[in-house]
Amino acid sequence: MVKASVIGATGYAGAELMRLLTAHPEAVITHAVSKSFAGQKMSALYPSFLSRDYTLKELDIDAVAEDSDIVFTCLPHGASAETAAQLISRGARVIDLSGDFRYNDVSVYERWYNIQHAAPALLAESVYGMPELYRERIKKARLIGNPGCYTTCAILAVAPLLKAGVVLPDGIVIDAKSGVTGAGRSEKLAYNFCEVDESLKAYGVATHRHTSEIEQELSLAAGAEVVVSFTPHLLPVKRGILSTIYLIPKAGVTEEDIADAYSVYKDEPFVQVMGVALPEIKHVTGSNNCAIGYVLDRRANRLIVVSVLDNLIKGAAGQAVQNMNLICGLNETAGLNNTGWYL
Amino acid sequence: MVKASVIGATGYAGAELMRLLTAHPEAVITHAVSKSFAGQKMSALYPSFLSRDYTLKELDIDAVAEDSDIVFTCLPHGASAETAAQLISRGARVIDLSGDFRYNDVSVYERWYNIQHAAPALLAESVYGMPELYRERIKKARLIGNPGCYTTCAILAVAPLLKAGVVLPDGIVIDAKSGVTGAGRSEKLAYNFCEVDESLKAYGVATHRHTSEIEQELSLAAGAEVVVSFTPHLLPVKRGILSTIYLIPKAGVTEEDIADAYSVYKDEPFVQVMGVALPEIKHVTGSNNCAIGYVLDRRANRLIVVSVLDNLIKGAAGQAVQNMNLICGLNETAGLNNTGWYL
Amino acid sequence: MVKASVIGATGYAGAELMRLLTAHPEAVITHAVSKSFAGQKMSALYPSFLSRDYTLKELDIDAVAEDSDIVFTCLPHGASAETAAQLISRGARVIDLSGDFRYNDVSVYERWYNIQHAAPALLAESVYGMPELYRERIKKARLIGNPGCYTTCAILAVAPLLKAGVVLPDGIVIDAKSGVTGAGRSEKLAYNFCEVDESLKAYGVATHRHTSEIEQELSLAAGAEVVVSFTPHLLPVKRGILSTIYLIPKAGVTEEDIADAYSVYKDEPFVQVMGVALPEIKHVTGSNNCAIGYVLDRRANRLIVVSVLDNLIKGAAGQAVQNMNLICGLNETAGLNNTGWYL
Amino acid sequence: MVKASVIGATGYAGAELMRLLTAHPEAVITHAVSKSFAGQKMSALYPSFLSRDYTLKELDIDAVAEDSDIVFTCLPHGASAETAAQLISRGARVIDLSGDFRYNDVSVYERWYNIQHAAPALLAESVYGMPELYRERIKKARLIGNPGCYTTCAILAVAPLLKAGVVLPDGIVIDAKSGVTGAGRSEKLAYNFCEVDESLKAYGVATHRHTSEIEQELSLAAGAEVVVSFTPHLLPVKRGILSTIYLIPKAGVTEEDIADAYSVYKDEPFVQVMGVALPEIKHVTGSNNCAIGYVLDRRANRLIVVSVLDNLIKGAAGQAVQNMNLICGLNETAGLNNTGWYL
Repeated sequence: MVKASVIGATGYAGAELMRLLTAHPEAVITHAVSKSFAGQKMSALYPSFLSRDYTLKELDIDAVAEDSDIVFTCLPHGASAETAAQLISRGARVIDLSGDFRYNDVSVYERWYNIQHAAPALLAESVYGMPELYRERIKKARLIGNPGCYTTCAILAVAPLLKAGVVLPDGIVIDAKSGVTGAGRSEKLAYNFCEVDESLKAYGVATHRHTSEIEQELSLAAGAEVVVSFTPHLLPVKRGILSTIYLIPKAGVTEEDIADAYSVYKDEPFVQVMGVALPEIKHVTGSNNCAIGYVLDRRANRLIVVSVLDNLIKGAAGQAVQNMNLICGLNETAGLNNTGWYL
Repeated sequence: MVKASVIGATGYAGAELMRLLTAHPEAVITHAVSKSFAGQKMSALYPSFLSRDYTLKELDIDAVAEDSDIVFTCLPHGASAETAAQLISRGARVIDLSGDFRYNDVSVYERWYNIQHAAPALLAESVYGMPELYRERIKKARLIGNPGCYTTCAILAVAPLLKAGVVLPDGIVIDAKSGVTGAGRSEKLAYNFCEVDESLKAYGVATHRHTSEIEQELSLAAGAEVVVSFTPHLLPVKRGILSTIYLIPKAGVTEEDIADAYSVYKDEPFVQVMGVALPEIKHVTGSNNCAIGYVLDRRANRLIVVSVLDNLIKGAAGQAVQNMNLICGLNETAGLNNTGWYL
Repeated sequence: MVKASVIGATGYAGAELMRLLTAHPEAVITHAVSKSFAGQKMSALYPSFLSRDYTLKELDIDAVAEDSDIVFTCLPHGASAETAAQLISRGARVIDLSGDFRYNDVSVYERWYNIQHAAPALLAESVYGMPELYRERIKKARLIGNPGCYTTCAILAVAPLLKAGVVLPDGIVIDAKSGVTGAGRSEKLAYNFCEVDESLKAYGVATHRHTSEIEQELSLAAGAEVVVSFTPHLLPVKRGILSTIYLIPKAGVTEEDIADAYSVYKDEPFVQVMGVALPEIKHVTGSNNCAIGYVLDRRANRLIVVSVLDNLIKGAAGQAVQNMNLICGLNETAGLNNTGWYL
Repeated sequence: MVKASVIGATGYAGAELMRLLTAHPEAVITHAVSKSFAGQKMSALYPSFLSRDYTLKELDIDAVAEDSDIVFTCLPHGASAETAAQLISRGARVIDLSGDFRYNDVSVYERWYNIQHAAPALLAESVYGMPELYRERIKKARLIGNPGCYTTCAILAVAPLLKAGVVLPDGIVIDAKSGVTGAGRSEKLAYNFCEVDESLKAYGVATHRHTSEIEQELSLAAGAEVVVSFTPHLLPVKRGILSTIYLIPKAGVTEEDIADAYSVYKDEPFVQVMGVALPEIKHVTGSNNCAIGYVLDRRANRLIVVSVLDNLIKGAAGQAVQNMNLICGLNETAGLNNTGWYL
């Protein structure tokens, strides 16, 4: 059994990770750490854990490093890098769910997050934790920057198209819609039920941090600098992201060319390419799956790609477990191969 | 008091019209017609009418024409044109809520709706019922093609920009999200609560009929043929549309230029331009308002415009009442000047 | 035009009152007061007011008393009584939406609210603002204790049955379910969308303050002390209350006897008795209506009554406007006679 | 591996069973049968199965009986008994999810279901599949009547209290609220999103079939005939039931007596007794758990019990898998020991 610890077990991503690890057939949670709620039961915050409970602990870096085959850090950016660095220095392997280790270039991070990076030296070795792109490097990594939710949804959909050269790297529009868990466990009025229910809003237009993460990976895929127009929206649902992506197909590109480009996913356990049957959020909710569909609109000369995932799973905790499986030599799908909930 | 009749009073748009007319201070409903439910009380279908009820009648064209200052036809396309033509021939003034009288060119209609038009001769005189564009013509019309919901939301947002020449007419992307009432009163499994709730889907990608209506009006505004990429989505909410529109600003265009372009709305009672404070669906739900905000993203060279309205009101029944007010010489805002519900 | 002022215009009940008064054909808002947001526009908090806006003011008791035919106090209990007392002493007529003036016996208030009453002397003259029970006294009142939401829903359903003596005063069970606006404009985690959505919870079991208010009025109706078992629940909806009420019919009581008991409402503009066709929340949402249905279950010897209203309207702001209409000599239904929204 | 077949795999309960069995570590699905969709992929109806798909088959009774260690029948009542009888006659062991085999007395079934029973001879040997009450009999059964959703929620909450004699068997009121999946996969307008969303309704008042099932088991628990007043409601959520149950405590009964009565569950894997911390639906959604809390209201002389479960899991498919585990000699919690989803 893999010994796993979770630092920051009570935020929404942390709690989802606790849920997935509890159900994982080959992992056991050794430390469930929460600064704010140390000493309390997990079920005091999330009564769904009544049937399989944990006592939340203070962070003891040495004990965590000692007792864990893998440590997940689920803290706010900045704090996460600090803690991860302390764990790494004690020999731990770390999967960090914040934005701190997702960047190749510290200056991009510092510009978009508007803080100084707490452990810039580690960026050189940290691996961007998207197995579909970096599987082999992940297996050998001791530090993973686990990708963002919007970013996973967009990159999985677009990177193969850019790699195959079937769309232009210019003029990419990503219109993304996310459930409210994406905002985390928050007391802000903006997330009060009465404010969110029966409505929809765009936010962070032209300024959302995930833009930079998307552009980093799409630029690598295209072999050229890619600038995207990315607009996130807040949906009145708990879980899930649907991204509608507008791309300009290269002249003469056919549906078959698009299908060929996506054939890189034919053996991927967690990516389903549906073709013209477009995916809906509910097709993947509760699973680690990302489903992708597309329509080639010759009239308007656009390729419209629709990509969906569960922001808490493939967009956060599930992808983190997938990374753990790879690092710890388990079957990549262990604890993750359930179908979505649909209902 | 204006005498108004509603043909097709029990669909969602018809019922909303019944609600608005019931509350209208200067209108009275003379005939509430329903083929399927004639003889029943309106409250048998919509118990919200218990406090102010109507008996639904069979369609008697002569009686309706005789007893009405204005007739609203809320039937499926095709059927609506037939009924409207009969009413017009008996001297009635008609506001048609179907797609039948929204087109200048019958061939566009027939291509997108895939039927033969039932009364093509009337298209020459029918007026597109968007008061912000055609107020003076509406006042004198005897036949109005009341605009579609997605189309109103898109056209009000984009037409002023094209008229002012601050954006390119090419490469326009309209990503629209609508509440489920937009699908009408339907028994389809796809609209079962369990299928819609906690999800989101795109539909009609590259083929939705409203595309042609949007393109007709935007082409007129631009003075050049405009082709748009329009993608509608089904939101798990009852009412409301939010459109996120991606436009390419002309070189050198500033926020002030955008604001200037939108200043055409400064005296419009039902359009609010919010600037960078982007509107949310809930800002307009329950009202005849359309609110518009925008962000100029110089980094990605895109102007992102967000436009919202209530699909049943400004997108259907409310706009129809606004047209009635204009045709019948009432104050344009009569029965429509309430604020949105917000909660 | 009646000059109305609202003290506490930015809470959910206050904002709903602002919305209703804005649409009222015979009232005008002279002071919209908010301690927290004075100087700001109403639309800065509720953008639905963009089309008809107000500037929020500091509380100036003298100015408010001077400029108002009626003042609505929508403050937390305790604070509301203080402000109301100051206004009364300056000659104003006050409708208070808090619990402060709903009680005949100050000791009951102080026990259930666990504070000392700020203006106990005024309790003797304050009138319980439920027009169906106290219409004539309301017309002459200068101080109204506007009833609670759960209480209105329960009392309108049960009082006629107790008055007519068709049910026992013992063993009454009231199982009530309310939308989240009932909790007010709150930043608490418990009201975060992710915590409320797709769930249901009971709260305040055996301790909710509205119990005492229900018992006061039902005891008066029964002419005997009535103790009820009242359990509120939090529904994942914004507006509306549905109460399912279990009563023990007296021996030999028939459906006709029940119908006779409810015939007291036959001329009431805002109460609809539906009989065995049970009302749903959506039948009244958006209106000042309370709809009541019932089933006599002889097998289990229970009369099950279902009662619904919109907690923000008949349960708060709408009932307050109804009281204003009575006090100010307007038509009782002015500004309130719209049908519900249904959709 | 246990070989399991599902007859009726595409209804909501059947699909949930497919989901649970797919994730079960010790079971494999040999026949997924659907009369309406034979030949199609499961993912054509439920795209969540794209990652682990099945081909739906016609019903071949002999093949199913031959290839299965256990067969689940998920058909409408009547049809289910017929099919189950055929399977039993071929030596299969059957867990039936309809109401057909839940009754000890065929006349009760025929009165409440208003049809003739298709296989009355089998009622004598069928076992009511609630492991908390009938674990040992279930282990040896070849035919299980899998309990209803409302009934499981009510019986688990009340039976221990009646057995312990801490409440009266009279005057029991069960006010239950269920998610829409409880109505099954339906095209009825009444379950259209726009009809259900933002509302609540009671239905089947005094006539719901589950009443008889609840009374059968509570009467056995009490050793006396129990008649309950049971009212179901339709919640705007997909999954989950919350029952609020009003009982009359016997004189002198204390909280400790209640806790003692519930101590029968102390080793039950799927029942959590929370005491005064009342359970919410979201505490159990996605799990096979039933959580129970209670408040003893001495003032009103009522014991209020709140009980929650996921109607598709502990209320249907999960309980069926629990029964399979018992019958097939697996660990009772196999495939079911995940925590709830909470989010």
